[in-house]
Amino acid sequence: MSPTPELCNLAEEFLESYRSETRLDYIDRKHIPSREGILEILRLCLELLYPGYHGRQDLTSENIGDHVVVVLATLREKLQLQIERCLCYDQERCGETASGPASCSGDARRKTSEFLSALPGIRSLLVLDAQAALDGDPAATSLDEVILAYPGFLAITVYRLAHQLHLLGVPLMPRILSEWAHSRTGADIHPAARIGRSFFLDHATGAVIGATAEIGDRVRLYQGVTLGALTLPRDRQGTPLEQAKRHPTLEDEVTIYSNATILGGKTVVGRRAVVGGSVFLTHSVPAGHKVSMENPRLRVRPGSLKSPGDSRPEI
Amino acid sequence: MSPTPELCNLAEEFLESYRSETRLDYIDRKHIPSREGILEILRLCLELLYPGYHGRQDLTSENIGDHVVVVLATLREKLQLQIERCLCYDQERCGETASGPASCSGDARRKTSEFLSALPGIRSLLVLDAQAALDGDPAATSLDEVILAYPGFLAITVYRLAHQLHLLGVPLMPRILSEWAHSRTGADIHPAARIGRSFFLDHATGAVIGATAEIGDRVRLYQGVTLGALTLPRDRQGTPLEQAKRHPTLEDEVTIYSNATILGGKTVVGRRAVVGGSVFLTHSVPAGHKVSMENPRLRVRPGSLKSPGDSRPEI
Amino acid sequence: MSPTPELCNLAEEFLESYRSETRLDYIDRKHIPSREGILEILRLCLELLYPGYHGRQDLTSENIGDHVVVVLATLREKLQLQIERCLCYDQERCGETASGPASCSGDARRKTSEFLSALPGIRSLLVLDAQAALDGDPAATSLDEVILAYPGFLAITVYRLAHQLHLLGVPLMPRILSEWAHSRTGADIHPAARIGRSFFLDHATGAVIGATAEIGDRVRLYQGVTLGALTLPRDRQGTPLEQAKRHPTLEDEVTIYSNATILGGKTVVGRRAVVGGSVFLTHSVPAGHKVSMENPRLRVRPGSLKSPGDSRPEI
Repeated sequence: MSPTPELCNLAEEFLESYRSETRLDYIDRKHIPSREGILEILRLCLELLYPGYHGRQDLTSENIGDHVVVVLATLREKLQLQIERCLCYDQERCGETASGPASCSGDARRKTSEFLSALPGIRSLLVLDAQAALDGDPAATSLDEVILAYPGFLAITVYRLAHQLHLLGVPLMPRILSEWAHSRTGADIHPAARIGRSFFLDHATGAVIGATAEIGDRVRLYQGVTLGALTLPRDRQGTPLEQAKRHPTLEDEVTIYSNATILGGKTVVGRRAVVGGSVFLTHSVPAGHKVSMENPRLRVRPGSLKSPGDSRPEI
Repeated sequence: MSPTPELCNLAEEFLESYRSETRLDYIDRKHIPSREGILEILRLCLELLYPGYHGRQDLTSENIGDHVVVVLATLREKLQLQIERCLCYDQERCGETASGPASCSGDARRKTSEFLSALPGIRSLLVLDAQAALDGDPAATSLDEVILAYPGFLAITVYRLAHQLHLLGVPLMPRILSEWAHSRTGADIHPAARIGRSFFLDHATGAVIGATAEIGDRVRLYQGVTLGALTLPRDRQGTPLEQAKRHPTLEDEVTIYSNATILGGKTVVGRRAVVGGSVFLTHSVPAGHKVSMENPRLRVRPGSLKSPGDSRPEI
Repeated sequence: MSPTPELCNLAEEFLESYRSETRLDYIDRKHIPSREGILEILRLCLELLYPGYHGRQDLTSENIGDHVVVVLATLREKLQLQIERCLCYDQERCGETASGPASCSGDARRKTSEFLSALPGIRSLLVLDAQAALDGDPAATSLDEVILAYPGFLAITVYRLAHQLHLLGVPLMPRILSEWAHSRTGADIHPAARIGRSFFLDHATGAVIGATAEIGDRVRLYQGVTLGALTLPRDRQGTPLEQAKRHPTLEDEVTIYSNATILGGKTVVGRRAVVGGSVFLTHSVPAGHKVSMENPRLRVRPGSLKSPGDSRPEI
């Protein structure tokens, strides 16, 4: 059955829309990274990092050797393909056709190799993060529970993988990974942020860590914490300095409680400092100091709230 | 093997529960919309709106024409089925059996047609939204990144589709779509809200935009912003006026920073006004004005926090 | 084709990492609960609790009896398997090999039976929760919409199932369920918390209810509400009392508006009290009282924000 005229007209309108709006154009591009392909890579990484917890479960000292070789071989192939696509995509986008796909292919092989070599070291870091969660949450019963059911631990796992790809200069892929983690855990950690050892993010929902944030070792964050930017610094002509450090620095052993907001690239929270829940902070805190809200001024009254100023959101 | 008596007894208890609790009853209903069916419709819409980014990836100027016809034909069939179910469902629920399924079927055909015709125009709006994200976030590198990895852009995409279905008077389906987007992105935008052109919602997690909110053009919101309601206005008999405007109005070019809460149907944030992070607002703001928290009064002290009033949430 | 030397070297590094880091070890364990298996159990529970809404849709008075028997039989088998794994897992972890897998198996059968028997009663509670959502949200149009599209209702559904498993002493499974709900809905409700009848959580994103929180009947919470802990009480030697009540108590008919934070195990919000949006509370509130922020001190000025203290987060 051939399509109805109505359908053909509609199709023509879409084609016209694709032709006229070239800014959103994935047609006739040769090199398109695949979101599904990238998420498959993540699943294989999780299977390597936490064998028995993710993916195949019947692992023994006997079969683990073969299993690792199989997963690694599959991961290498898929990773190299997607890295190549991301590199060619970027070349195509920037109009750099001179170097050509051959250079993408060689680059992709090298970057894939470097990423895989970095994985055991990343695993050692993640063991420290898992231990930090177990130590930091009185409700945690075991490392198994942390690995199987802590969203903050999943978020830091994906961050450490995405950050490595970011350091290797792979475009797009790190952000696709970090957005998957954001969707699953509620925590939005930019792959370019720098986060030290033994990091613990409890509950995770709503946490935002910006691209130029720097976080030391043994730092604890809670749900809803924003490490954000103030207005961009500008040069003398008023042009925003987009490369400037826009997000705060947290030194070692800092703790930031739930829903605190800390803003600005020059804001430094010093070593061992503590920022209390819901604090809104745009200036630095000296090492070892504690910041909390001055007794929050609350109105406590008997009776019902009737006036419009009574702050009763119903949605 | 026949079921054990224990299993039969349990089954009987469930059947008794279904019989006695008729408020939750999807049994013997002829017309039930399917969540899976509706999400499949969304996937097809995304494939039409952003070809090559979602779904099939090897699109060229050669094959795109056939591809669009196939996707449109599939979408039309599935959409008409689910719209019909939603309309019949509503008729059944309201006890309107007079008009009968024949009227649902005709209505569904018309509404399906109108929805499909609106899609190219919705696509043009969404290109403006994508551009607003690229312009509004210094960390964004390309429109491709916005489409592939910005949760706020996914949320506004689903909102614009759900809002169209809402305008067409399709019951249930808009809310099922918006809840999928809420689950994926953390942003809860009611399909009945009105949102202008070039809308940018950064990070998205925790944003809530209520059913009667009105948002102008070129508005920027950040994570955790609530556009909510105060207590419902009541009539002289004290009955809540459920149809009243309960949520705020944001005029053109307003910016609301992270975790600000703005409440009330009479609250208007005027053109080009800016509301700072974490501000709690229940009154209007004049055009061109900026609202921020009066220097947040913070207690900064050396030493450790020991007393119970020290605001150290550990969960 | 045999693996390349490079691949073999990489594999060896992973194996060395698994051998040296015995804290994260799911290899050579006989009894590992499966996340996918547990989520399949949840799907079956949802199909029993809300027939026609979840899973199979063509249910009639004729076929519902057989359908329930089939779902129950499948559920019983899968549930018993995963409960047994969880129990054996815990035994293995604690080094209790004396009692042996035989005792796990018998225990699992008993706990499975008790859980299934509790389901009709849990369903009755959930009908009250659905009604509370319909009554509490002016934008809700029907119980169907609540069941199909309210994240807070999905979160309380999963909580009531996970809480029952927690009461039965099943390890790990309750937390895996609650984290799935957290990921889907944004609400993090610990399975050990106690929540009364007719509970309504609107919007859900970012809500956190800690393990020792106690919530009465007819309580309403909004998005972003934290029921969290202050520092752990310590004994005379300074050891934290991990078993202490760390999270607040909300008595019957309490309402807590969006993004309020309530902390501490001794904090009691009395019957019918109301806590306003964004309030930060570490002390008790008497019954019938209302707490709101003392007129939030805001700076409202014309003109643009230029200075760094102007609180303009850009990420």
